[in-house]
Amino acid sequence: MKIILDAMGGDNAPLAVLEGAAQAVKEYNVGVTLVGDEEKIRQCARENKISLEGMELVHAGQVIEMCEEPAKAVRSKKDSSLVVGLKMLAEGQGDAFVSAGSTGALHVGTSLIVRTIPGIKRPALATVLPGAGPFMLLDSGANVECRPAMLEAFGVMGSVYMDRVMGIENPTVALVNNGAEESKGTELYREAHQLMKVNPNLNFVGNIEPRDVPSGAANVVVCDGFVGNVILKLSEGMAKTLLKMIKTSMTSNLLGTLGLLLGKNSLMQVKKAMDSEEIGGAPLLGAARPVIKAHGSSKAKGIKNAIRQAKTCVENDLCGTMEVALTKLQSEAKGE
Amino acid sequence: MKIILDAMGGDNAPLAVLEGAAQAVKEYNVGVTLVGDEEKIRQCARENKISLEGMELVHAGQVIEMCEEPAKAVRSKKDSSLVVGLKMLAEGQGDAFVSAGSTGALHVGTSLIVRTIPGIKRPALATVLPGAGPFMLLDSGANVECRPAMLEAFGVMGSVYMDRVMGIENPTVALVNNGAEESKGTELYREAHQLMKVNPNLNFVGNIEPRDVPSGAANVVVCDGFVGNVILKLSEGMAKTLLKMIKTSMTSNLLGTLGLLLGKNSLMQVKKAMDSEEIGGAPLLGAARPVIKAHGSSKAKGIKNAIRQAKTCVENDLCGTMEVALTKLQSEAKGE
Repeated sequence: MKIILDAMGGDNAPLAVLEGAAQAVKEYNVGVTLVGDEEKIRQCARENKISLEGMELVHAGQVIEMCEEPAKAVRSKKDSSLVVGLKMLAEGQGDAFVSAGSTGALHVGTSLIVRTIPGIKRPALATVLPGAGPFMLLDSGANVECRPAMLEAFGVMGSVYMDRVMGIENPTVALVNNGAEESKGTELYREAHQLMKVNPNLNFVGNIEPRDVPSGAANVVVCDGFVGNVILKLSEGMAKTLLKMIKTSMTSNLLGTLGLLLGKNSLMQVKKAMDSEEIGGAPLLGAARPVIKAHGSSKAKGIKNAIRQAKTCVENDLCGTMEVALTKLQSEAKGE
Repeated sequence: MKIILDAMGGDNAPLAVLEGAAQAVKEYNVGVTLVGDEEKIRQCARENKISLEGMELVHAGQVIEMCEEPAKAVRSKKDSSLVVGLKMLAEGQGDAFVSAGSTGALHVGTSLIVRTIPGIKRPALATVLPGAGPFMLLDSGANVECRPAMLEAFGVMGSVYMDRVMGIENPTVALVNNGAEESKGTELYREAHQLMKVNPNLNFVGNIEPRDVPSGAANVVVCDGFVGNVILKLSEGMAKTLLKMIKTSMTSNLLGTLGLLLGKNSLMQVKKAMDSEEIGGAPLLGAARPVIKAHGSSKAKGIKNAIRQAKTCVENDLCGTMEVALTKLQSEAKGE
């Protein structure tokens, strides 16, 4: 298996990407093709004593920055690591593409270059989150403006993923909203609710209030990419702030300090469970071939785990499975 | 001081409301006027041995339910506890109104009956949240659909509140967004950013990513009511889920169990700091007179703390202060 890796994407590139790639090559038995500025990559590897064994290098002289307008950047920077990498994936020169670069550019680039599964107009960023029980949140940041039918499609794709890849039979699907009643929310959410309610391919359990999201009240949690990004990043921030508050509160007295020492391993376990670096990456569901977005602030561990995610998607033939499942659903819908 | 209290509002009314009112009367030295079904209130008080000393009763035969369409409910249920209470406030028969009932109905009713401060079209639900440092989140659930100028006005009102009521000089104001760059977010957020950036009355620090919200990176955090409600309720849910995960993880081994026993007080402190019942209520900023929304699921403590909030708003002449500050800002803006 060969994973194409955007060596220049993310806040800590190329160093964190090279470190993560080196760890992944060792641990996961995958081949990695690094795409990016060859000279910079070799220099970084040399300076930091990172072995590039098991990795190929493909030169790409440009980098798409986080602040660039996605569509414009993808169209104009043909020699960027992101565009070159996506083209290689589209042409079959690798099994999956991983990038910690701009979500917007990766999303637009995937739609334009890798294309989508028939019936899906816009891929969705789908993150499996820990919480009390793992659940899939989508869209978690790719489509900030959505139409009701897009939310419905997110529900179907999330449902297929949780069923076929995560092995959760007949997964429950819920729509994020500011109340349980159908009448709640903006027009987008009210209309999406009506579509999802009558969709025979969804085990739709109605609206989910944000307070019930972390407890794993539904297997698939659907929302637009703006709200999804808020949920994703706020969860991360809350976990960090709370664990810090607990530490501060416990070390403020002797008994607490002792308690912290004794319970440290347990707290570390929870911290690890909530760590975005552990999750590593989120697949762009609906893409014709596996594209994984790693967290923009990924360190080596985040990159390594995103490569693990990519490997899982390839092993499970995520895109083929998704396409077969969606085609079946569509033909069933026509047959009714 | 007299606080008008919606005795029928919220999931646990009237029992929790009566209990909370009785505690508040004792602790805060305020008078309370209970508005609601007189017979039911007296029966509930009798059955649960709650003293109604220090409280007046005003009969209102109807109740606005959570699922009702707000504007229709306010217009048609003239004899509801919410409408009768708001009318009493508008007519000066009390200093503030507290309700745990429907946010939508309270919002519409406040605009229609109590009216708003000149220059403010729609009041915003403003919650002061704990986190690493207390910050104000608005709108936290009243206006689910917003225009850019509304977000700008929320920033100004939140700024005045944190300055005049909370004593934070020149408070920082940030706009929730899915990235730090100005180009990020939906059209609403991109346009609001431009308005806030040039507003001389705002110490605007730009976009805030949701992961930085709980750490208190800004004193005032601005967003639309749909996103604000997600932030408010997800914070609550995350705190609950995380503390539960920590407890489960610690009690799974002997050392951890011991650590939990020793650190219990510290953990309880954090739990208390994150407890929505402790916050109690959120003022509707921009209303001409003090209106406080208590959490719909408030128990006695939540109601009591919402009454404390109301008392603070009256003591600080929140509405008068807000009006003077906004008028000054408006005349300064004209003079430029």
